[in-house]
Amino acid sequence: MYIPTFEDVLEARERIKPYIHATPVVTSRYFSQLTGAELFFKCENFQKTGAFKARGAANAVFSLSDEQAGKGVATHSSGNHAAALSYAAGCRGIQATVVMPRNAPEAKKTAVRGYGGRILECGPTTAERETMLEALVEETGAHFVHPYNDHRVIAGQATCAHELHEQAGSLDAVVAPVGGGGLISGTCLSLSEVSPDTRVYAAEPENADDARRSLRAGRLIGEGIPVTVADGLKTGLRPRTWHFVSRHVTDVLCATEDEIIHAMHLIWQRMKIVVEPSSSVPLATILNNRALFAGKRVGVLISGGNVSLRKLPWMNNGSESFKPGR
Amino acid sequence: MYIPTFEDVLEARERIKPYIHATPVVTSRYFSQLTGAELFFKCENFQKTGAFKARGAANAVFSLSDEQAGKGVATHSSGNHAAALSYAAGCRGIQATVVMPRNAPEAKKTAVRGYGGRILECGPTTAERETMLEALVEETGAHFVHPYNDHRVIAGQATCAHELHEQAGSLDAVVAPVGGGGLISGTCLSLSEVSPDTRVYAAEPENADDARRSLRAGRLIGEGIPVTVADGLKTGLRPRTWHFVSRHVTDVLCATEDEIIHAMHLIWQRMKIVVEPSSSVPLATILNNRALFAGKRVGVLISGGNVSLRKLPWMNNGSESFKPGR
Repeated sequence: MYIPTFEDVLEARERIKPYIHATPVVTSRYFSQLTGAELFFKCENFQKTGAFKARGAANAVFSLSDEQAGKGVATHSSGNHAAALSYAAGCRGIQATVVMPRNAPEAKKTAVRGYGGRILECGPTTAERETMLEALVEETGAHFVHPYNDHRVIAGQATCAHELHEQAGSLDAVVAPVGGGGLISGTCLSLSEVSPDTRVYAAEPENADDARRSLRAGRLIGEGIPVTVADGLKTGLRPRTWHFVSRHVTDVLCATEDEIIHAMHLIWQRMKIVVEPSSSVPLATILNNRALFAGKRVGVLISGGNVSLRKLPWMNNGSESFKPGR
Repeated sequence: MYIPTFEDVLEARERIKPYIHATPVVTSRYFSQLTGAELFFKCENFQKTGAFKARGAANAVFSLSDEQAGKGVATHSSGNHAAALSYAAGCRGIQATVVMPRNAPEAKKTAVRGYGGRILECGPTTAERETMLEALVEETGAHFVHPYNDHRVIAGQATCAHELHEQAGSLDAVVAPVGGGGLISGTCLSLSEVSPDTRVYAAEPENADDARRSLRAGRLIGEGIPVTVADGLKTGLRPRTWHFVSRHVTDVLCATEDEIIHAMHLIWQRMKIVVEPSSSVPLATILNNRALFAGKRVGVLISGGNVSLRKLPWMNNGSESFKPGR
């Protein structure tokens, strides 16, 4: 199992530069007052394809030899990685094929097709997805790019925290969401090199707390089938990302569904930016742990902004207990 | 009637600097491709209080002598100017009082109170509003700051286009929304000095097209009682703003309600920023007049981002003809 190094991150930065944005770092007096910490929001919702995933996908696609690339790339994902891989493949002029559950949201399919990706529909189970992907790879020779358990993807995501460090200067802590662990692993990878005193916290929904359980148990625990509004964080850690989480993450902090929705609403209302639920988990956990961050300079990774504008989580009527104004 | 000069704009910039943000200018490859023009979005949705109104209000409040200021400021507004004046008064440590219709949205009242403003509730008619404001001024000596028909307010709003010109460089055209006309007047004032070749277009809802009718008639025509989703643009021009519109605006461009909502949805979806309906009218009119702007460098004023996140205009169910995906 190849574990990417900081050299790989520096190479990734050069490699992907023409295809990604150096996203802005935003501060907010309101949130600094609310939390007592000085927060630096790294806005990957403004990234190409609307999420940090463009970094890892671009690094993977542009790492391929011409011969490999000629056969195209493939993945299974119903989320941001699918769009990001399609985008990166388009930049290189090669074909991306995405195996996607038949019942995936139409908006996700539209995004993939909009970037020139091809969709193969499959049944809803992991087994069906993997079988179809294997058949595809076998048949076409397409190169499989895993959404996060891939050293090139992790090195690509690592460029985000590296950039943040250059923009915001020395930070006491960085809080990043954790699902499969690509972004948090990249964050550990970069910061352990350029700012080893910066603590890295992983933020996760209570309802999908495999990283917390793994860290406490000291071994990788599978994710089950979580139910959470933070749809980007349902996936579980894999060996390459567990490698980084187990070695470099100070702690895993959790937030409930209501807390995530509350934080998301606050971000939209106060910062006037569109962020997805997964991106709101770090702020929610900071609000849950104010004493831990008070007086500190804290980086907050806003991972993406892809969300169905017709179906926002605070709009579940009726039985919904959440009150945005609280 | 004192008409503000470019000297007033330069003084305003210095005066309000500590209290307002130099907001970012954002470009979008997607929108440039969609429109065929190079668009520069000036993001006043990221301004203090969530709208450009903080500029004019701050300039008015900090123009007062200590003696005047000591008696506080007052206005009638149910929108962004009310919050902006409350904010500016708070910065100066004086009281703002806002006369507001009893039936104004609770969110607007909360914003005013959040900035320390005091609310006097009145009936829904203009006559009731003005009577109560006059009584208030008489009683307390508070200084009335009109939302737009005020030379200090216009000079303050003018700092927005001045800043845009510095950030984006020479522009062929700037498109700004027009309601009462404070922002468009300030835009004319600054650009006629620093970039006289830049054409200024006013953007307005079809349903509230008093500026267009006035410009065509060559005289100021009252606004009636318009019904439009762009709630910030329901007000009509007044003598000071008509002065600028009649002299400097190349044309007034209009958009239907559906076009405004479509543009707003596109901005949220593609740029990942929260903008209010009024802010989306310029883009809607550019989409309606592509030939006019094709190949040009065009500034687009995003006036604000204050919107009820629970009630977005594309969520009117049932009879709603608008389809975001079109």
